Amino acid sequence: MSTIPYKIYLEESEMPKAWYNVRGDMKKKPAPILNPATLKPVTLDELSGIFCRELAEQELDDTSRFIEIPEEIRNFYRMYRPSPLVRAYCLEEKLQTPAHIYYKFEGNNTSGSHKLNSAIAQAYYAKKQGLKGVTTETGAGQWGTALSMACSYFDLDCQVYMVKVSYEQKPFRREVMRTYGAKVTPSPSMETEVGRRINAEFPGTTGSLGCAISEAVEAATSQEGYRYVLGSVLSQVLLHQSVIGLETKAALDKYGIKADMIIGCAGGGSNLGGLISPFAGEILRGEANYEIIAVEPASCPSLTRGKYAYDFCDTGKVCPLAKMYTLGSGFIPSANHAGGLRYHGMSSVVSELYDQGILTARSVEQTSVFEAAEMFARVEGILPAPESSHAIRVAIDEALKCKETGEEKNIVFGLTGTGYFDMVAYQKYNDGEMTDYVPSDEELQKSFAKLPKVD
Amino acid sequence: MSTIPYKIYLEESEMPKAWYNVRGDMKKKPAPILNPATLKPVTLDELSGIFCRELAEQELDDTSRFIEIPEEIRNFYRMYRPSPLVRAYCLEEKLQTPAHIYYKFEGNNTSGSHKLNSAIAQAYYAKKQGLKGVTTETGAGQWGTALSMACSYFDLDCQVYMVKVSYEQKPFRREVMRTYGAKVTPSPSMETEVGRRINAEFPGTTGSLGCAISEAVEAATSQEGYRYVLGSVLSQVLLHQSVIGLETKAALDKYGIKADMIIGCAGGGSNLGGLISPFAGEILRGEANYEIIAVEPASCPSLTRGKYAYDFCDTGKVCPLAKMYTLGSGFIPSANHAGGLRYHGMSSVVSELYDQGILTARSVEQTSVFEAAEMFARVEGILPAPESSHAIRVAIDEALKCKETGEEKNIVFGLTGTGYFDMVAYQKYNDGEMTDYVPSDEELQKSFAKLPKVD
Repeated sequence: MSTIPYKIYLEESEMPKAWYNVRGDMKKKPAPILNPATLKPVTLDELSGIFCRELAEQELDDTSRFIEIPEEIRNFYRMYRPSPLVRAYCLEEKLQTPAHIYYKFEGNNTSGSHKLNSAIAQAYYAKKQGLKGVTTETGAGQWGTALSMACSYFDLDCQVYMVKVSYEQKPFRREVMRTYGAKVTPSPSMETEVGRRINAEFPGTTGSLGCAISEAVEAATSQEGYRYVLGSVLSQVLLHQSVIGLETKAALDKYGIKADMIIGCAGGGSNLGGLISPFAGEILRGEANYEIIAVEPASCPSLTRGKYAYDFCDTGKVCPLAKMYTLGSGFIPSANHAGGLRYHGMSSVVSELYDQGILTARSVEQTSVFEAAEMFARVEGILPAPESSHAIRVAIDEALKCKETGEEKNIVFGLTGTGYFDMVAYQKYNDGEMTDYVPSDEELQKSFAKLPKVD
Repeated sequence: MSTIPYKIYLEESEMPKAWYNVRGDMKKKPAPILNPATLKPVTLDELSGIFCRELAEQELDDTSRFIEIPEEIRNFYRMYRPSPLVRAYCLEEKLQTPAHIYYKFEGNNTSGSHKLNSAIAQAYYAKKQGLKGVTTETGAGQWGTALSMACSYFDLDCQVYMVKVSYEQKPFRREVMRTYGAKVTPSPSMETEVGRRINAEFPGTTGSLGCAISEAVEAATSQEGYRYVLGSVLSQVLLHQSVIGLETKAALDKYGIKADMIIGCAGGGSNLGGLISPFAGEILRGEANYEIIAVEPASCPSLTRGKYAYDFCDTGKVCPLAKMYTLGSGFIPSANHAGGLRYHGMSSVVSELYDQGILTARSVEQTSVFEAAEMFARVEGILPAPESSHAIRVAIDEALKCKETGEEKNIVFGLTGTGYFDMVAYQKYNDGEMTDYVPSDEELQKSFAKLPKVD
């Protein structure tokens, strides 16, 4: 019998007191974000019109290695953190693998995912700046729920533009947000100029994250005392999410476990970036080595098939441009795609780390993802979010490889959240009606052709 | 700053190794359950036709104080236990109360409630006896989900009769059960004799727990290698749920906290009975005193307005009779009732403890319950199950009394689960469409008139 418990909980006193900014350890920094009007690096003043001042500062800070977590945020973290690092004894048994599998479980809070880690930080800085409220977009609904919870805690108004297809498929997500006092609008709506324009251009569209972002930015910049907040992609979000990786590393260190492999699902990159940050930092500083794998859906393969180029972060082209692995800001994953992770681009920090070879990437098809999800749910007792299940898929694949080779690798993956509000996707899978889709090269080339020209 | 953390987690080594059977400490025992055919106390052999042998033994054992938890069950418990005892710092701050509020949170598992504690025990004994599968009923769906998870873990067939109104209102609950491999049938169905009879007698009925129990019992006794299992009411279930109270007491003792008041919601009594058992034991042994409060819905008030009498446990009258506080086995709460806890009777152990004055009871109306739920969700970051919110309501009321009197009481309540699959009820509340209902005395008298005549 091993002495490693099923769930490793840090003490509250062992929780991180500062976020880790991996950019501080990167010799080659991610390319600067550009003002869409001038195509010049955006200034702090320009960025402060969209984001809260302190968040704009964090966005542009690529030198500080650590940024203190304000006490108010640490107190909120204590309501649902530290999150457990779980030893997947039952999954190992089921797979009959010599590998040791660990997962960092971020789903034990009502938002159901890791998104709350950044939501509370962004709400805090908005409150501190004396704002009335914030606007945002949400796709699957995890980010919108997290932000609603955070705003309710700090008594801020919260306006959420929810991708229309999710708004209709996930009425209960909407109700959770309403219970936390948020105003939820299906996107594209008729409430913003950009929404009306998109509705006119694509009648009957069920929306996309890119559209919803444009609407939320417009709503923020056209109301006095409001700012826009975003749940992924941004460097500030990765900074806040570093709490995941810091706790993971502290828990592993506490038990003298050296990770061989770290696996995370990748949509915009917030969970992956947060999870891997401290490990990537060790690689960058030449202190250790890890195999880091980003897992993305085959139907939205920004890292494995995208271009590393400057692109718009939103469909309406109102946000700064970022250099990132991208499928083009007009790319919308096939309607049969049920598994989240549908953003066209990838965090510029993750993109640059990937370009430098600090991590590798793999794409997986959704039926195999739901197979892995079902197996995991049955043996580990947690019904995972479709997003998280991308990481489960690859963790299982790697554990099975260890079975063949006899290697006792320590595999660590991020279980970003639960699937309780994704039962429409599970139903499709249970009914045998789930299919796979991989975009053709032609489809991607057509999308790449619309990338902005930036020198 | 207090030294008590936000969340008290026991070490895995501190988890209970035996369940506590409060009946062992009761001088006056709960009245025996009766065979419905003979109206004589049911024998072990008779009971073993319905339940697994070892569970039947536990049901009838009113003398053993402790019963060892088999290692296989303890290993499963480790996947989601120990559950945290949370200090509700944020709720205290919101209420500006000098009281210290603690809650034992049982919702951190995919079934979303404490029900898994007994489900895994019942599935284990079924597997050990070499059975093929089990049948059960579910109302809100928590028990059915828990049993599906437990059966999937032990590779047992699981047949769930789900009250029709819930089956229709909660398609996602059904999908979770299906993901765990269970067969879910809306009740009353046309698959059993009793179902067909009830459908004929009450055309268009949306079902009740009592009907679903009858169907599940018939399904168990008419299939070779099947037994029936039940998620509440039974003494064996309270035994398994004592793990809640034992952990709670261990966590309080670890930090030198003496509870003044223990509050639990009460439907069939499984959570309440489990939570209070070790505390009630201390009262029974004259070692300590606590104020224990059972909270029930005003629309289904078995303790506060029921009769203490022998009654049928199910509508079809196929189960043993139990002496309990009951509204009559034909009582069905008003259709506007959204808050769970809709069983007509109360665990005979809880009933007898109540009759002996070990605990008191209080009934609350559902709009005030959802008000409390919303406040709790906003400050404590957990969206509670409607059931659990009954306890929250009274905990808040008591904390507000402390604010008036200045008393620093230690209030402990059971937060049995999360409300993620109860968003239809929350939507009703968010839309201002929730109403209250209290059955009239005439309605109850009419129901009492049908109680069986037992000397």
